[in-house]
This record gives sequence, C-alpha cells and structure tokens, in this order.
Amino acid sequence: MIQPDVTIVGAGVIGGSIAYELSKRGANVCLMDQGEAGQKASKAAAGMLGAQAEMDLDSPLYSFAQYSKAIFEGLKEELQDCTGIDIELVQKGMIKLARNPLEQEGLKKRALHFKESNEQAFWLEEKEIQAKEPAIQTGGMGGLWIPGDGHVNPSALSTAFVQGAVSNGAALLDYTQVYSLIVENGKVNGVMTSAGPIKSNHVIVAGGAWSEELLQKTGIQLNTYPVKGECFSVFAKQQLLQSTLFTEGCYIVPKKAGRLLIGATETPHSFNERVQVKGMMSLMERAAGLLPALKEASFEKSWAGIRPQTADGLPYMSRHRNLNDLWIATGHYRNGILLSAGTGVYMADLLEGREVREDWLQTFSMERQISYAGRE
Amino acid sequence: MIQPDVTIVGAGVIGGSIAYELSKRGANVCLMDQGEAGQKASKAAAGMLGAQAEMDLDSPLYSFAQYSKAIFEGLKEELQDCTGIDIELVQKGMIKLARNPLEQEGLKKRALHFKESNEQAFWLEEKEIQAKEPAIQTGGMGGLWIPGDGHVNPSALSTAFVQGAVSNGAALLDYTQVYSLIVENGKVNGVMTSAGPIKSNHVIVAGGAWSEELLQKTGIQLNTYPVKGECFSVFAKQQLLQSTLFTEGCYIVPKKAGRLLIGATETPHSFNERVQVKGMMSLMERAAGLLPALKEASFEKSWAGIRPQTADGLPYMSRHRNLNDLWIATGHYRNGILLSAGTGVYMADLLEGREVREDWLQTFSMERQISYAGRE
Amino acid sequence: MIQPDVTIVGAGVIGGSIAYELSKRGANVCLMDQGEAGQKASKAAAGMLGAQAEMDLDSPLYSFAQYSKAIFEGLKEELQDCTGIDIELVQKGMIKLARNPLEQEGLKKRALHFKESNEQAFWLEEKEIQAKEPAIQTGGMGGLWIPGDGHVNPSALSTAFVQGAVSNGAALLDYTQVYSLIVENGKVNGVMTSAGPIKSNHVIVAGGAWSEELLQKTGIQLNTYPVKGECFSVFAKQQLLQSTLFTEGCYIVPKKAGRLLIGATETPHSFNERVQVKGMMSLMERAAGLLPALKEASFEKSWAGIRPQTADGLPYMSRHRNLNDLWIATGHYRNGILLSAGTGVYMADLLEGREVREDWLQTFSMERQISYAGRE
Amino acid sequence: MIQPDVTIVGAGVIGGSIAYELSKRGANVCLMDQGEAGQKASKAAAGMLGAQAEMDLDSPLYSFAQYSKAIFEGLKEELQDCTGIDIELVQKGMIKLARNPLEQEGLKKRALHFKESNEQAFWLEEKEIQAKEPAIQTGGMGGLWIPGDGHVNPSALSTAFVQGAVSNGAALLDYTQVYSLIVENGKVNGVMTSAGPIKSNHVIVAGGAWSEELLQKTGIQLNTYPVKGECFSVFAKQQLLQSTLFTEGCYIVPKKAGRLLIGATETPHSFNERVQVKGMMSLMERAAGLLPALKEASFEKSWAGIRPQTADGLPYMSRHRNLNDLWIATGHYRNGILLSAGTGVYMADLLEGREVREDWLQTFSMERQISYAGRE
Repeated sequence: MIQPDVTIVGAGVIGGSIAYELSKRGANVCLMDQGEAGQKASKAAAGMLGAQAEMDLDSPLYSFAQYSKAIFEGLKEELQDCTGIDIELVQKGMIKLARNPLEQEGLKKRALHFKESNEQAFWLEEKEIQAKEPAIQTGGMGGLWIPGDGHVNPSALSTAFVQGAVSNGAALLDYTQVYSLIVENGKVNGVMTSAGPIKSNHVIVAGGAWSEELLQKTGIQLNTYPVKGECFSVFAKQQLLQSTLFTEGCYIVPKKAGRLLIGATETPHSFNERVQVKGMMSLMERAAGLLPALKEASFEKSWAGIRPQTADGLPYMSRHRNLNDLWIATGHYRNGILLSAGTGVYMADLLEGREVREDWLQTFSMERQISYAGRE
Repeated sequence: MIQPDVTIVGAGVIGGSIAYELSKRGANVCLMDQGEAGQKASKAAAGMLGAQAEMDLDSPLYSFAQYSKAIFEGLKEELQDCTGIDIELVQKGMIKLARNPLEQEGLKKRALHFKESNEQAFWLEEKEIQAKEPAIQTGGMGGLWIPGDGHVNPSALSTAFVQGAVSNGAALLDYTQVYSLIVENGKVNGVMTSAGPIKSNHVIVAGGAWSEELLQKTGIQLNTYPVKGECFSVFAKQQLLQSTLFTEGCYIVPKKAGRLLIGATETPHSFNERVQVKGMMSLMERAAGLLPALKEASFEKSWAGIRPQTADGLPYMSRHRNLNDLWIATGHYRNGILLSAGTGVYMADLLEGREVREDWLQTFSMERQISYAGRE
Repeated sequence: MIQPDVTIVGAGVIGGSIAYELSKRGANVCLMDQGEAGQKASKAAAGMLGAQAEMDLDSPLYSFAQYSKAIFEGLKEELQDCTGIDIELVQKGMIKLARNPLEQEGLKKRALHFKESNEQAFWLEEKEIQAKEPAIQTGGMGGLWIPGDGHVNPSALSTAFVQGAVSNGAALLDYTQVYSLIVENGKVNGVMTSAGPIKSNHVIVAGGAWSEELLQKTGIQLNTYPVKGECFSVFAKQQLLQSTLFTEGCYIVPKKAGRLLIGATETPHSFNERVQVKGMMSLMERAAGLLPALKEASFEKSWAGIRPQTADGLPYMSRHRNLNDLWIATGHYRNGILLSAGTGVYMADLLEGREVREDWLQTFSMERQISYAGRE
Repeated sequence: MIQPDVTIVGAGVIGGSIAYELSKRGANVCLMDQGEAGQKASKAAAGMLGAQAEMDLDSPLYSFAQYSKAIFEGLKEELQDCTGIDIELVQKGMIKLARNPLEQEGLKKRALHFKESNEQAFWLEEKEIQAKEPAIQTGGMGGLWIPGDGHVNPSALSTAFVQGAVSNGAALLDYTQVYSLIVENGKVNGVMTSAGPIKSNHVIVAGGAWSEELLQKTGIQLNTYPVKGECFSVFAKQQLLQSTLFTEGCYIVPKKAGRLLIGATETPHSFNERVQVKGMMSLMERAAGLLPALKEASFEKSWAGIRPQTADGLPYMSRHRNLNDLWIATGHYRNGILLSAGTGVYMADLLEGREVREDWLQTFSMERQISYAGRE
C-alpha cells in the first residue's frame, strides 16, 4: 500500500504542478484523479500567459501572476528534458484592443502606469497596430501592446507536469474516487477512496470546480462555483496573426500550423460541458468582427471547460483553518494555466514551511471568507 | 476472380440502391468504392424526402421524385427484414415558410396547384402555423403545409442498401481504386482496378461528384461539378419541432432524441470537405431566426458533403451514348436520398430493357447535352 | 425551482427506466446525473437479454429476470411511439457452448430442468449446432439452445428511457453534482446539488458503481464495488452469426450491418475506463477460438464499462433501512440491461406501496446485509 | 490563376518535403492533394529514422538513407523556427534483437561490418541489453545496438514540411482532384484538375500508393503496388523503454508521455485502411513477447497506412523517360519518413540540374524497369 507524504486530489494543471514541484524537492507524492489526468478545465484552456492585459496592477494577484509567468521559460526546458514534452511556449506578444473611448482611456492609463514602472507594455496607435497585424479590423481606437506576453499548449503543460511528477517518483492514481477525508484529532491523515484508504501526512485539494463536492463531505463549504467557458478553434491557410489578440469577451490565440483558438464565453453556475449554439454564435461574431479573414478559415471543433471561481475572484492557495495538514489550491478561474507554475512553487513552499510573501499569504488564504458549515 | 454481370462504381446511396435492386432481381453484382461505402455525400445528407416543396410541378423530375418517395414505405420494411437496419422513416410533414410577399405568392400558387390536382399540400395562415409549431418564429406570412413529407436517416439508408445487396449475394469491393474502363470494340467489358481487372457485361458509374474523374480517363466529359454543402446538428432538451421546417437556404429537420439537423450552404466547384466559419455563422443565424430556442440547444457537430450537380440541374440516369453497356447514374445534387429508391428501380429497369416512361428517358439521358471530348 | 415528487440520482439505464415508469404513472420526477445521461456502464453493455443461460433457475433473481425480459416486447413499441427510438430488439436465440465435460454435464442438466418446466431451452448436439451456425468452431461437446433469448441496443435503450421520461414530463438535470442528501427528522427530503437544493418527497439512488460515493457522504456503506468489463467490436463483410454465442468469459453478439460485439473481461475494484492490452489479447484469442472468421473482420473499437457488484451478487432494489423515503437501485452488475425494464416497474410499485412478490422483497432488500457506518 | 514553376501532386511527407525544399530555394510551387495534406501513409508511420538496422550496407539506398538521416538535426531547428512545429526528434538509439541463431549470426556480421567502417553500431551481449533495457524479454541471444538511431513524430514532420512550404510562398491546393496531365509536344505542361487547369513547367508526382492511378491515365504503368501496414499504440504509466526495440515483423517505438507505438504488419496489394483482428492479434502477441509489461498498458488506438512498394524495393526518384519535365518520387515503402528529408533535397537538385551522385541516379531511375503501356 502506498504511504505518501502528500496526497494531492485532482490531477489537472494545478494539482500536476504542485505534484511536480513537491516530487522534485524529494517529497513522496500521491496524485489522484477521479478520471483521467488533465482532461477537464486544464485541457479546455487557451493557454494564455497574459497578466498585464487584465489584472489590477496593484493587487497581489498581479504580482503573483508576474512571478508565475517568469517561471515558464526555465520550466519549458526542464519539462522538455524530463518528459520529452514541448509545452509550446510562444512569446510573440499580445495586443489588447480598445473598442470604445472608455476602453481606450483605461488602456492608455494602463500603458502610462507600465511606463512609470518600467514594464514592457506600450500604447499603440491605430496605424501601428495595422502595421503589426494587418489582418485585424482595429476599430480605430488603438490598443495596448505587451511584447512579453504569450501562450503555451495547456494540454501539453498539464501532461508534462503529471509525467514529470511521475518521473520524479510520484504515484499517479487516476480513475480513483475520493469518498472522504480521514480526520483524526483535528488533523487530516489521508483520504478514503475507491482504492482503499490512502494515509498521508498532508492532503492537498486541487480539484478545480469539483473541490467543493469533496470538501462538503467534511462539512466544509468553500463557496467556489463553476463557470463554464466555451471556445472554438479553426485552421487558416495563412498565418493570420502573430500576436495574441485580446478584447473583453473574446480573444484569439495563434497556435502552430495555422490554428487559431478563440475564447471564451462565461456561464456561471454551470457544470455542463456541452457547447451551446448561442455561445458559438456570439464568439464567432465577435471573432470575425476582430479578424474578418477568420470567416474563410475551416472550423475545427468547439468545447467547454468548467473553471472554479470564488466570491472575490481570487484563488485559494492556503492551509485549511480548522483541519491541520489539509491544504487547498483552487479558484484560479480563467488564469489556471498562467498561475499554475507559481502555484506549484508557492504551495510547495507553504508545505515545507518556507517563508512566503506576506501579502500573498493574506490574499490567498481560505480564512479571508471561509465559513464552516457544521451539521448540527 | 469475381465475374459479375454488373459492376457498379460507387457505393453511396445511389450505387447502393442500384446494387440492392439488381441483386434482388437476381443479377450478379459487384459494388465498388474507392474508400468505405456510404461515407461521402450520402452520409452528409439531411435525409429529407421532400418533393413538393421545391420542384417545378410540371417537370419529369417532380413525377420521378413522387415515384421514388412512394417506394420508401415498402422499402422500410423490406430493408428492416433483410438487414435489421431501421432507416428511421418519419412522415410528420413539412412546413415551407414564406418570408416575404414574393415567396408568399409563389407558395399560395403552389398550394392552389396542389388543390386542383388533389395532392396533399395546403396553405397555412400564420395562426395555423403557430398552433402546429409554437416554437417557430414565423414572420407572419404563412406557409405551405405538406403533411406527407418526411425524412429518413441517410446513413442508415445507405448502409441498408449496401448490406441488403450483400445479403442478396452482391460482392462489395471497398477501398478499391478504379484505374480505367476496359473497352473492347466500342463496348465496355469491365474495369481495371487496384485489385486487378474486373470483367463484367455492364458497368454503372454511380460515383457522385467523383464520377467525372473516372470518366475523363476514357475521354468522356460529364460536365458535372461538385457543390459543397455544410450542415450542423444540435441536441435540444425538449422536442422543439414536429415537422420539418423548410426555407430557401435553411432547413431544420427534427430527428430522434431531441436532435435537430440544420442545412445547408451551397459552394459550387469545391471538393473541400471542411466546414468554413462563415458557413456555420450564416446557417446558425438563419436557423436561430426561424427557431429561436435553437440558441439554447447544445451544438453536436458540423460537416460538409460534396454533391454532384449538372448544368441543367437534372440527374443523369442513362446509358452512355457511345460506349455500349456503360451506364451513368449521378448528378442527383441535393435530392440524392429522395431519388435513391427510384433510381435503383429505374436503372434496373433500364439494364433489363424494360419499358420506362418516355419523358424520364428523355429528361435523364446523357445525350441531352453530353459532349465527347476525344483526344485527337 | 423544481419541486419533484421523486428525485432520481443517476440517469443510466436503471435510473432512466425508473424515471420512465414513474413519470408514465403520473409522478413528478427529477432525473439527475453528474455528467451526460446514459454514458457510463449503460452504454458499454452488450445488451444481451439472456436469463436462462447463466442464472440459478431456483433463485428469485431468475424469476425477476424472466419477468423483466417479458416486458421488452411491449416496451419496444411503446418507446418507439413515444420517442422515435428503435431499441433494436432482436430475438434470434442464444447458444451456450459446452467446452469441457463439466460444462457439458451442467448444461445438459439445465436443459432437462427447462424441459420439465416447459421452458423454451433445448440441448443441441454437435451437428445441430454446426447446422445452425456453420461459422462456429464448436469444440464437439454440444450446447444449450435458448430460442427466445436476444439482445437490444443498450445505448438506444438508455436514451429512449430518458427521452421517454422527459416526454412524460420528467425534468432532466444533467451535469449536476450531488453534494449530499437533505435529511430532516430521519426522513430524506431531497438533495443538495451544484444547482442548489432539490426538495422532493423521495430520493432514489440509481448511480451504479458511483452510488457508493454518494451514500458514504451520509454515513451509509452500501458495500458495492466496481467491476470493470472490457469489450470490443468488429465489422464482418458477411453475417457470421445469427444467434448470440455465449461461453464463460466470452460472448459474441451479432448486431446489425455485420457488426459483432465481443465481451467481456472482469476486473474487480477498478473504476479505470481504459482498456488494457491484456484484456484485448485475451478476448480476441477466445473469440477467434469460437469464431475463426472473426480474424478476418475489421476491428472497430474497444471500450470498458464500470459495473456495480454486491457481495452476494444480487442487486439492491429496496427502501433504505434507516432513512425514510430513501430508495436504492443498484448492484445489477452484468445484467443491468436485462433487468432494467423490470427494475423500473418494480421500483415504481415499491414507491407507490403496491404489493410485490415477497421473495423479491426479501432478496433485493438492502437490509439483508447493509451495515450502517456511523461516525462516532 | 496560379502559374507555378512546379506542380507537386501529393502533399504527404514526400511531396511536402520536395515542396519545402524547392520553395526554400525560391521556386514558385503549387502543392496539391486529393484530400487533406499528410493524412495517409505519412500520418500512419511510426517515424523511425533507422537505416543501419535493416538495409544492405553496400546498397545506394543505404548511403541515401544515411544522407537523409543526417539532414534531420538541422531540419528540426529550421522547421521549428519557420512553423513553430516541434518534429519531436529523439535520438536515444535502437536495439535490434536477435531471436534465433540465424539472426544472431547476421547481426554479428553487421556489427563487424560497422566496426570496420567506423560506424556507430555495436554488438550487445544478453546482459548488456538487460542492463540497458530491463523491461525487455531478450530471448538470450544478444542484439545490435545503434546509438545514433531515433525517431520523429511523422505527422508533425509532414505538417511542418507543408506549413514550411506555405510560409515560403508555396500554394497549397488541397481537396483537389487531378484528372490528367497536360501534355504538349512530348512535354508535360501542368495538370487538369477539378479546380481547372494548372499550368506549370514541371510536374512532380509524389502521390505514394495513389501515384499509379494518376499515371495510368497517361498510359504510364509505374508497377508500384500498395502494401497495407497496421499499427497500434498504448499508454504505459511508467517509461518502459528508452530506445527503440526492433525485430523483423515487430518494432516498439517509445514516444513522449509514456506512449508506445507498435508496428507493423504487411499486407501487399491492399488499399484497405481498416485494421483486421488478425493483424492486431499478431502484433500484440509479438510485442508482448518482447516487452511483457506492455500487457498492463492501456490500449490507445490502431490504424493502417497504405505504403507504395516497387518490384525491387527501391524508390523511384527520377525524371520520366518519355515525357519531359515529368518527375516521379514514390515507392519509399516503409522508409518514407527516414528518406523524406533526403528526397526533398535530391529532387530539388535534379530539377535544378545540379550534379548528384551517379549511383543514386542509376538506382532510383524509373528507367531501370519501367514499361510504357501505350494504348494501341
């Protein structure tokens, strides 16, 4: 019988990254999934590594995102060496387009802010955008240009984390149902599963939108909720875009071999993994408005992913308040791929008791809002 | 070595129907396909059996379509008994909606014409349509109601024809490349293939849009051309429609288990089997305009089929002018499923030398326009 | 908010059948599934309706199986009318082959037993089997011939039950996570779900192998366990078999259009839905031993299903011992399709308080072995 | 209308490589395919780059194979830069196992030969193989170790060639039927296609097993024939192999993420792309004999590819004897991936009139055996 130091429930990109990092540091890890590793939201993502386009620049989440993004370059080589998997890191920049005066003003402010803090992000006028990306229908209001932004293949990344963990000695128990936590004297000591009890010193719940279900069994309400996001992809004969094109409600990510990935709708409180006609209609209309040549492209497929969201939009990366040695890492919502690398390192630091940034500790704590729903 | 009486090139719904009928009558048939039977336009069709909604009521094609449609009820039982396959014949009627005064006038005339000839097709006012199909957004101009129209599962039908032929003793040679016709003294005596020569008294070319290629090898130009048609399907939780809803450029066919099939675009001169974004956008917009609840349905998949069209829009079902014992059955365009049953019987009659309707003989003859492109 | 009389957790063939029957009787039903309806073990089954080949003829399960089997003929018409779905009921008999003297003796006894009770099942000598099914490699020891046995399309059946329930007014909540039972004063009053609380007078747990997980949350141990079964299917050009061919560890079911379905391995305590190489090797070897022409057939696909098994091999179809208005219907193991029709009627009878057979009441009761695992 | 210098018929790995090289050198290239680029034999390959294990060391094909293999390292970077596609070049060596005294003797001779010519290939004793690859069931007779051998992802390579050509300015006409060659005064001047006539100074036929069909139309018999090869792939939880394992009739190639690819059967004269049960049984048995842990792996999928073979087993890479400016590149059989890089460079050299090795010119000429089958 397996006797890991750490059991991680959920083998998506978050659980996989934590497993990879902990196993690299020598921990004896058991990584579990109720189905196949990396097949849910992690696979459905577009893989953008964009922190500067959206986030509030003063928030701890922004600093954490920048921290996580910086890890990817080294990670690419590391995972390639360890697993043979190319995570397809592309860093050709992102354009965030202004489509009305309000957005224009906001993006100009953001550009100014970046300039002041010496970050690589610049305001582009209409003509500059056209010169850079002739296929875009710009709308004439300019946009923000973030040269360092890019993207990875999210499915390759998830697989590489899991394979990397396995090659570091982690045990992967897929298709394993977790029935409940094993709790002894206010301390978690493992999980009861369809494969029997797995005893371990620590349990990390990294089950994305499905974390809620597991924790409810122990009387814990996380207060996360699922948000369904729909995407589609196409093949174009020519390379229509060099950089990622981003607007509120629609982004277009140029992948290899003429493939473009378009996302994403947002339907809160839905676990339904099917794509609705209205979602496709709205995405196609928006994307074709930004990039008219997309209409000539060949449709490949559409899909949906179920992302875990929290009440305040910030992830939980934290120890549990009441149960010792229970840890949570979920709620990454639309930024799971971007935040995954940082989450692995951060959670490993937490478990090892290393010092971490105080503002992160506060911001990502479960205690900031968690309510214990006991059963009287 | 196989020595069939008749070699049929093309195992789609047309070739399959001819093979089924000829083998039922005792002929020794070899049915060939360059790939898998029934996987091209036959599988891509919606399966509508609608003759009265569109065709010129005085044309021989209309009488042939009605003739073919009448065969399906008996055929359903026959194929079920012979092969165990349910062709999913549904006869719950079709509504052809008027969307402007011109269409309204045309459909009213058509209704009058049907009334005079005692055919089952009636004009419906706005309220009557709403009563019959509450989910339709009618447009307020009424429509034509054809109670006898319906549809089949085109893939099941194609498979049943081929399986039925096989169970009648026909040989099926799939994945077989036809290199050329074997011609001796102005008579076709078989085909040269990747499986060697197949000698036979008759050769029937029923290769849909791919017939042109085969015949060009013998210096024959059919003057057919491919027309790509794109479709998509959805799943709705409730049964949104009872009858088929038909307009120019967009029809919605209610299949079993909440599935709706929506078709079809038309792109002439294309063999490209991929679906373009613009085709999906246009179909989705039209379909959602007719049936707003479609937006809530789950997208299943999209696909394209390559249909064979002729210069005058009429199929070729005929002997060849110059080469004895060479026969052609192609050019059925959007009506391949509807016309398949009749084509099987009619071509078998032609080969057996039975008497057929004189107007059909003229109308469907290759000689009405074929030009022999000899190589001087 | 939905306020059903009955909530059914699990929309497989068992939950679907109960939902269909209860809604037909006028109950207000809510049918829930954590994913898509009918996509797990129900879809993975071969669909055999064979009671006489295997079961202990004196057991209540045998009488229940015969009772369930008898329902299918009427059900076929009913579901076709109600949903347009053909469940593909075929009743061309089953041969259970003896492969050694022990099996021969057992089957001869069984044949005698059937003869005495005037049931349709007969001993066949070697030559008779060869005459009936020339493609079988018999082994020379004869076999049991059960003319009334047959099979359905399990996926069509599951879909038809669910669609039938919906057309009877049932609500289908798919992709809905059940977090826990709502328990008030020793009575179940609904379920807590990812779509909010669903209040209902009754809750029926019909979640197959996943029932255990749900019930553990309320401190109930069902003591069922998953048994993985692997299958594969092929296409043969000729119809190789008329009847189903059955041996211990390998059966071959002839479906329409030359398709043969071969099953099934048994791997206890596994939720893993992937097929292992060793499973395919062993199944292929056995099947090719019984039907050598299978080697020439084209491989279609392989798959696995996770069936719920109980300690004594009998299903639970019962009220819960301690919690009022909680009902269980699971543990049907390899006979889920065969028993589904009967289970729907029987569970509806139980809920309505109708009289049922006393031996069934005893045999299928949870109380025969259930242990309540409270949390001290 | 496109007016290319060179039209290439067939967008598999051979046509793609030629198009890539010619377009890199500045030629105006049109690359055509009757379906989708790279979807036939090129996609079905295992991607081994093994020249030293099999070929006659004195033959010009061996020197050409070594020449081609040497190109891949530079090509990997070039294609990655140009298209973003990683061809997944792995060079961890190959073991060719001796399974009987005859094979042992042959491989020992081969090892000696390599030693004399200072090539990197060595004889390994039983224990050395076990030390290197503990999971192999060796058979106790040692084997040949070729450290430089490896493999690529054949589908990625094919796509990268085609995408690279397109980014060099080549036109890709997929889903285009070629009806015939345009011949004027003994010179080929283009092709007649379903997209109209394409005029060009040169035509290169690189249609793999489908080349025969095209050339027959112009009265040319290539005398190639199709050989179907079946493969399957599995996922193992652990990395079972480091190097490629090769025996006559069965090889196992370790791909990334625990995937193993096993090939390949050989069925001459078949265009049938379906996998037969007997092919899978035989491959699985052999592979499990070599690597017993394979039985525990999860089956992924099986497939077949149709490879072009010639009478003497050598490819045609040559101008046509009778028709000026018609070129042929087919017949690469099981070595299409390995030879693709060299074929691109070699054919480009031929077309440009550069000097090439005299022995290659002779060996790969069509004239070595071609017979012109005129139509009297």
